Amino acid sequence: MTRTTPRLRFDAFLATHSDDWYVDDPLLHRLLDRHAPDADRARLVAWGPTVAGRLRALAEESACPENAPRLRHRDAHDRRVDEVVLPASTLEALSVVHGEAGLGAVRGDPFVHYAMTYLLAQNGEAGVACSLACTDGLVRALDALGDAGPHRTAVRQVRESLPDGYVHGAQFVTEIQGGSDVPANEARAVPDGDRYRIHGQKWFCSNIAADWFLVTARSRTATGDGTHVGLFLVPAYRGPGRERNGYTIDRLKDKLGTRELATAEVMFDGAEAWAVGPTERGLAHLLRYVLTPSRFACVLFAAAALRRAERIAGEYARFREAFGRPIAEYPLVSRTLEQIATARAAALGCAFELLRLWEAAESPDRQDHHATDFRILLSLAKPVLTRQATALLHEAMSILGGNGIEERFSPLPRLYRDSAIMEIWEGPHNVLFTQALNDLCRFQVDAEAFVERLLGSPRPEIAGPLAAAMDGRTRPGGDGTVALAGLAPTLVRAVGQAAVDRASGVPAR
Amino acid sequence: MTRTTPRLRFDAFLATHSDDWYVDDPLLHRLLDRHAPDADRARLVAWGPTVAGRLRALAEESACPENAPRLRHRDAHDRRVDEVVLPASTLEALSVVHGEAGLGAVRGDPFVHYAMTYLLAQNGEAGVACSLACTDGLVRALDALGDAGPHRTAVRQVRESLPDGYVHGAQFVTEIQGGSDVPANEARAVPDGDRYRIHGQKWFCSNIAADWFLVTARSRTATGDGTHVGLFLVPAYRGPGRERNGYTIDRLKDKLGTRELATAEVMFDGAEAWAVGPTERGLAHLLRYVLTPSRFACVLFAAAALRRAERIAGEYARFREAFGRPIAEYPLVSRTLEQIATARAAALGCAFELLRLWEAAESPDRQDHHATDFRILLSLAKPVLTRQATALLHEAMSILGGNGIEERFSPLPRLYRDSAIMEIWEGPHNVLFTQALNDLCRFQVDAEAFVERLLGSPRPEIAGPLAAAMDGRTRPGGDGTVALAGLAPTLVRAVGQAAVDRASGVPAR
Amino acid sequence: MTRTTPRLRFDAFLATHSDDWYVDDPLLHRLLDRHAPDADRARLVAWGPTVAGRLRALAEESACPENAPRLRHRDAHDRRVDEVVLPASTLEALSVVHGEAGLGAVRGDPFVHYAMTYLLAQNGEAGVACSLACTDGLVRALDALGDAGPHRTAVRQVRESLPDGYVHGAQFVTEIQGGSDVPANEARAVPDGDRYRIHGQKWFCSNIAADWFLVTARSRTATGDGTHVGLFLVPAYRGPGRERNGYTIDRLKDKLGTRELATAEVMFDGAEAWAVGPTERGLAHLLRYVLTPSRFACVLFAAAALRRAERIAGEYARFREAFGRPIAEYPLVSRTLEQIATARAAALGCAFELLRLWEAAESPDRQDHHATDFRILLSLAKPVLTRQATALLHEAMSILGGNGIEERFSPLPRLYRDSAIMEIWEGPHNVLFTQALNDLCRFQVDAEAFVERLLGSPRPEIAGPLAAAMDGRTRPGGDGTVALAGLAPTLVRAVGQAAVDRASGVPAR
Amino acid sequence: MTRTTPRLRFDAFLATHSDDWYVDDPLLHRLLDRHAPDADRARLVAWGPTVAGRLRALAEESACPENAPRLRHRDAHDRRVDEVVLPASTLEALSVVHGEAGLGAVRGDPFVHYAMTYLLAQNGEAGVACSLACTDGLVRALDALGDAGPHRTAVRQVRESLPDGYVHGAQFVTEIQGGSDVPANEARAVPDGDRYRIHGQKWFCSNIAADWFLVTARSRTATGDGTHVGLFLVPAYRGPGRERNGYTIDRLKDKLGTRELATAEVMFDGAEAWAVGPTERGLAHLLRYVLTPSRFACVLFAAAALRRAERIAGEYARFREAFGRPIAEYPLVSRTLEQIATARAAALGCAFELLRLWEAAESPDRQDHHATDFRILLSLAKPVLTRQATALLHEAMSILGGNGIEERFSPLPRLYRDSAIMEIWEGPHNVLFTQALNDLCRFQVDAEAFVERLLGSPRPEIAGPLAAAMDGRTRPGGDGTVALAGLAPTLVRAVGQAAVDRASGVPAR
Repeated sequence: MTRTTPRLRFDAFLATHSDDWYVDDPLLHRLLDRHAPDADRARLVAWGPTVAGRLRALAEESACPENAPRLRHRDAHDRRVDEVVLPASTLEALSVVHGEAGLGAVRGDPFVHYAMTYLLAQNGEAGVACSLACTDGLVRALDALGDAGPHRTAVRQVRESLPDGYVHGAQFVTEIQGGSDVPANEARAVPDGDRYRIHGQKWFCSNIAADWFLVTARSRTATGDGTHVGLFLVPAYRGPGRERNGYTIDRLKDKLGTRELATAEVMFDGAEAWAVGPTERGLAHLLRYVLTPSRFACVLFAAAALRRAERIAGEYARFREAFGRPIAEYPLVSRTLEQIATARAAALGCAFELLRLWEAAESPDRQDHHATDFRILLSLAKPVLTRQATALLHEAMSILGGNGIEERFSPLPRLYRDSAIMEIWEGPHNVLFTQALNDLCRFQVDAEAFVERLLGSPRPEIAGPLAAAMDGRTRPGGDGTVALAGLAPTLVRAVGQAAVDRASGVPAR
Repeated sequence: MTRTTPRLRFDAFLATHSDDWYVDDPLLHRLLDRHAPDADRARLVAWGPTVAGRLRALAEESACPENAPRLRHRDAHDRRVDEVVLPASTLEALSVVHGEAGLGAVRGDPFVHYAMTYLLAQNGEAGVACSLACTDGLVRALDALGDAGPHRTAVRQVRESLPDGYVHGAQFVTEIQGGSDVPANEARAVPDGDRYRIHGQKWFCSNIAADWFLVTARSRTATGDGTHVGLFLVPAYRGPGRERNGYTIDRLKDKLGTRELATAEVMFDGAEAWAVGPTERGLAHLLRYVLTPSRFACVLFAAAALRRAERIAGEYARFREAFGRPIAEYPLVSRTLEQIATARAAALGCAFELLRLWEAAESPDRQDHHATDFRILLSLAKPVLTRQATALLHEAMSILGGNGIEERFSPLPRLYRDSAIMEIWEGPHNVLFTQALNDLCRFQVDAEAFVERLLGSPRPEIAGPLAAAMDGRTRPGGDGTVALAGLAPTLVRAVGQAAVDRASGVPAR
Repeated sequence: MTRTTPRLRFDAFLATHSDDWYVDDPLLHRLLDRHAPDADRARLVAWGPTVAGRLRALAEESACPENAPRLRHRDAHDRRVDEVVLPASTLEALSVVHGEAGLGAVRGDPFVHYAMTYLLAQNGEAGVACSLACTDGLVRALDALGDAGPHRTAVRQVRESLPDGYVHGAQFVTEIQGGSDVPANEARAVPDGDRYRIHGQKWFCSNIAADWFLVTARSRTATGDGTHVGLFLVPAYRGPGRERNGYTIDRLKDKLGTRELATAEVMFDGAEAWAVGPTERGLAHLLRYVLTPSRFACVLFAAAALRRAERIAGEYARFREAFGRPIAEYPLVSRTLEQIATARAAALGCAFELLRLWEAAESPDRQDHHATDFRILLSLAKPVLTRQATALLHEAMSILGGNGIEERFSPLPRLYRDSAIMEIWEGPHNVLFTQALNDLCRFQVDAEAFVERLLGSPRPEIAGPLAAAMDGRTRPGGDGTVALAGLAPTLVRAVGQAAVDRASGVPAR
Repeated sequence: MTRTTPRLRFDAFLATHSDDWYVDDPLLHRLLDRHAPDADRARLVAWGPTVAGRLRALAEESACPENAPRLRHRDAHDRRVDEVVLPASTLEALSVVHGEAGLGAVRGDPFVHYAMTYLLAQNGEAGVACSLACTDGLVRALDALGDAGPHRTAVRQVRESLPDGYVHGAQFVTEIQGGSDVPANEARAVPDGDRYRIHGQKWFCSNIAADWFLVTARSRTATGDGTHVGLFLVPAYRGPGRERNGYTIDRLKDKLGTRELATAEVMFDGAEAWAVGPTERGLAHLLRYVLTPSRFACVLFAAAALRRAERIAGEYARFREAFGRPIAEYPLVSRTLEQIATARAAALGCAFELLRLWEAAESPDRQDHHATDFRILLSLAKPVLTRQATALLHEAMSILGGNGIEERFSPLPRLYRDSAIMEIWEGPHNVLFTQALNDLCRFQVDAEAFVERLLGSPRPEIAGPLAAAMDGRTRPGGDGTVALAGLAPTLVRAVGQAAVDRASGVPAR
């Protein structure tokens, strides 16, 4: 049979893919102009084609099912090794982000730094976004609290990462009896000279291939009459033979998303550890230095995933014809594309606003409301924006029809699955809404002033219900969390839109 | 280290799993009591433990990544074989449903038959639900239209399936240039004596391991002055060596969901085929006999997936404690559990109402409004219920926290991914809403009477907007589809709830 | 491009494959006529097409790299399960040989029984030959020595095996410090009421998927002043949940051959066990009941592998042409084919002679020289014939040229790899030659009479060197083992040829 | 249970492994002293730890079954891509040998160059030894015969290889109708302007991941009245998108050995090609430039594999104790170790003698007997030494007992399997013996002078039978090939031993 029909139907679609995700993102430029007008953007200029080209290809390779992380428990010589086998593509991507781009710790302008993270995250997890977020938290904790030799070694190794030898971190908090309830941790840290020994199981150990772990564990109080949960630095290996440092990796999780990331079940049995900060402050430090960058990374992921969805769904909708015209011209499709674009803009705007507050909160001349505003807004934005990302990635897939659910046709199914993980990671929705409400009440936040600070103008239609939600928490039988959960999407999107407006020179609404 | 903490934290959770999904489903009993009061339920009694035990275990095994279907293109002797390799667990499941349970074609009472399908579908796709839906369509088409020898052979083989030798069907419609627009099919059927030869590519060929394919292809009209899309029966194999019948299987899709099901890209190049019915009626027959059972299967899947989610999320919420009490007692969790239960009931009720209409529509003494009501309700229910299933499976996963996104911990991530496929399969949302609106207008349906027939009482708050949507289609600039899409969830859920109420002796609202 | 050359070059070769390995084996018929003239051969008649058809296809499927046995250490619910995953093809083959053919224990005429084993082994190991040999040993030991309930249960389960529920055995002897030196076993058996508890590691645990294990372990003597190595029966599972009985499966070996067979490293830590016979007789019982059937199975394998090689290499040599004529006509090729045929005949003859001696040795009215002759001949035949098989499989592969080393083109590479395992299994060459020499001396065998008994006529050219080798063992500085190793091939082949001659009516040479 | 026995039994064994294979090889030093006294050995000094360390580890990783080469036929966008997926370890090893060490083409002293190849080959094939041999042949052919632009491009790219961008070659000769009979090639080369188009199938295409292929194909003679088999250069890719150059990769072979090396079945259908040298001289050039380096590589492999076996078996025999003393002290074991050492020395000596002759033969002032002696000796040495390597690797495995056949315990099973491939590759035994005899007769070699030239002294006990074998070829009914095959081992080992003796200052025997 002679094939008379042209076979390569998708060439025109593939040809429209952007090859520089920095250059093609005017909103990102405007936000950087506003927040980091003087920062050097050379790294971003180089990064745009890297993320859209080399790292995109590596992510697609890592995402192939046959490249899923594997665990080899034992070698042939009767030694337990628990070797985590990552594919060449993930290893190369880690080398690029840590060794070439030096993204393991914030260096230079933080807006530029996280803009690079945002661009990277348009490739989804693909094994390396989690590594960056965890290493960020490790370095922040050790920079602030580190005093022992291993503390300094870890930070130095991260900062001196090279393509052939990078170092990264991980954080193990969740235990089998439950994730969010960190105070209920059962793993124990037992003093042993100038260090501790960790015993017990951790149930969700992401980025298990890291070199340094931050681990929460219960230790005895100084007075000896009780225990509390402290924060500890644990080297992955010990001794000249680089043996596992007193723990076994018992299983790799088989997750719905972020499958390129090796997440393990770990049993500690005598691992050497060094306390990070006073052990009685472990939970506070965990939140401030470790969970916060991870939650912020989730917000960046949400914006990034929507940016990718906007691009791919738009390209496909302009390429694919039905009944004689591009499907982009159909009202339902064009409406969906608009929703994605609007949501992406607000998500990115919100991320920049969060970063502005974070920087102010961490600066020496901080005003307290910056820290409070940041905490609360982050607790609201993380669940709202990750959930929205999942929902709109679903819509974007639908635009591609049957091709939309093909994992190798586009990254949309992968981003969709990744996004569902972001929703759960570092605190699911209800936990974070509860925490936000607690903070609002504990710090006796003035709803009106809070809303005006974030939105740039008084917005009684938002401040009113917010005050009512706060009121509901204390009132007998009131369920302020439900009310806050209902209100949060409106508030978060408004914050994001206001940030976009400001960067675009649009007056406050 | 002596392990003093008990390790097996989940035993109590696992012990609560139901081991008979028929017995533990009172609503199903009530619906059967109403719709099939005299039917023998012995098959169901046996089926309850089978689906909850043996088939559940097989489905879980099939869902392991290492058991994904594989394709072997060539053997070592220079022969192209395109062997589709399914794991033992999928083959055994197919043997059970086709060979032992005889579910390939409706036999006995249809309500009992589809109740068995609903119970089976609580295991998700897992490789066999699609096979049942496709074989159902094949047999319906051939029963109604078959006249040639191969037609009769195919039906007989399906009906005579045994555990050691079952026969099943598949349907290949979608082409690379688009799925929903079947009239644009480019594959060709060329007459060759008493049969045809199929040439061209099919882009989504699910259940490719089947024995008989129903294929749409373009053939010349009798007058020779044009072409139309007809329906053809294609044996998978030919000749004594059981070679592939004039086609190659070029690739297996890597899908987000229903991964246990082998879906292929196929190139026909001379496959022997027999027309099924007059070729000029191909599209109408496709819709009536082939797409309809598939869409109905999607509705059953939605009810089944929610039933499973209700069970697992409930069991987990009663097992898992946080801050000293089971999480089922927390308002957000209990509310979600209720939503899932309510939605499941309505979905199952709607499925029974659809089946009642379908049976009436296909009966000899049919009244036309049965056929019309069925068509329209199915077009509305399929998108509404599959989308709702996806959303609520997402909520169910959240109740399990980090364990919720672990693919081996529970079937929820798999059902969630499967459900996303059900949304796309056999027509995505916008296509079906458009078709429903077309039908409403084409058959000049009286909105008030239609709603009253479905709900058992006049419901102006639904009938009014429905009439408006119909009106919007014809009005210049009106977009009735968007209006109908917005209204459909209310209508479909009301239909389902009304069916549940009737079965439960609750008066119409 | 139009393909004008015919593509399917190997069809003619494939068409010559025998489809009944019993019918096409006249030598087997002659040997059975002589040794089991009155035995019913109905099972063999049915077995011929089964091994050449269904079991051959299953073996080829099991041998695909993707079907290698896998080990799942843990499930998602924090339970160590050590599940051994075998492919569907291996499971079906086990079901056929145990459940359908009842080959787990000798039933009916032993010559017919082992003729069936010989036919089966023409498919190589492929996961089931080892299972048969091990189960044979298990039943022999328990039939002779069993007195406890579990002993009787194990034997009954094996004998009552059905296709849907078969039971088989395994034997774990080798430890990490060395295989052949069983008296050095370190694993311990500690009394616990009416049973024992096993502790310690076993390093080569073949057929790990079995239901019952025979395990050697060190226990305290009755007088309590020492230890000895006893034989114990260990159920694979215990309790209603069929948990592993006090051991972990730590790793599967990655072997050169018999890859379809799961061989594990096992750590016992409290497994329940029942002594089999008096513990002080453990080593003797191990040799008599367990190692002997395994070594005999190696002899059968050698004959079977050569039979397969003879068939395939012959078919290929007659099919393939070079320079205008079939390569079978070239002197080097035809000579090799003859060598294979001759060696196969002698190996099968030797197997029948061994079985004759074994039966006589085990019969109630046994004459002692039968037992001694059998022991010594088996110790010589096992290394000689397995090594010869490896060498000639190598030659057979060479006849197929490049196609000869393609694992999917023919079974020859697989049989070649399997044969290398047979050489090591149950005692490598030097251990067995040493044991044969020890036995010759210990029982003060008369070399001339021994040779005449085996060969049917005086053969001084063999008996002389044999006596000299015996002499060399005791003489200071003499190395009788080396001399015996040099002589053994001649003796073993002569025994085999004499058996063939007798069966063929040829007078003793 | 407290584990009182030390678990890590093999640490002492592992600790004895050499970490510099150049330094620990005195014979290699002596041979280099004799043959390349003035050559710079800096590359060798650096290479010793690299092959024993980094490349050894990469080879072991590449050899894991899960790292076998894979073939992806199609992408998700309806494009046939035939992507050959190699593991990271193989890619890194290729980068080291081509990009870092520059071993793709001879540079500097040839004795040093091939000494590096010999050291590398101690890791077995592991994916890269074949690449070196093929690239060597490619460059030799193009250096001697190349005149077109692509010829020069290919050579330049090989010579300019860098770690990040290396280029290598492959050679496709064998067709499905037979390997050795190159004159029977059916693939066709059709002129197309200044180039050719290749059509037809090649059946054993090793190193398919290469960038340039040398392909034999049949083209029409200049006079047009016949055809002959010519040699052609075919780029692997063409066009800006680096599409496959007019061929499909239909299947990867599943080979007994050299499994890390991707060997394919390829169908050419219009590939662009450039003739290399006059097409009527294709067969002669193939032998001289392409097959010769490959056969020499097989000889180097044989020496290298034995060197590795000598090392590992010796280390194990000194480590493992049985009955209270190291097994190295047992006569059978020590004898085997001696055999391996002696055979290794002779094989390496023979390789150096071959290289000396080759260099002389290719030098401008060549004497004809150098070329003839080299041709004949290579034809004899390749089958003799590869077969001997297989046999002695088998013996080495036996010394390790059960651990000997474990693929991950030591490289011995892998080297054993690789060696079986070397025996078949580039001409199996009978083809090469036939060719040697043809050459002896065609060039009317004087047996006595030939033997004296190679051995350094008259050796009538070898020269006599050699002359008789030559005589047997021409005598009616004589089978000189069989005689030569019988004599060849003695001759080849004597040549090797004489070379060793000369390098060691031992007088000729």
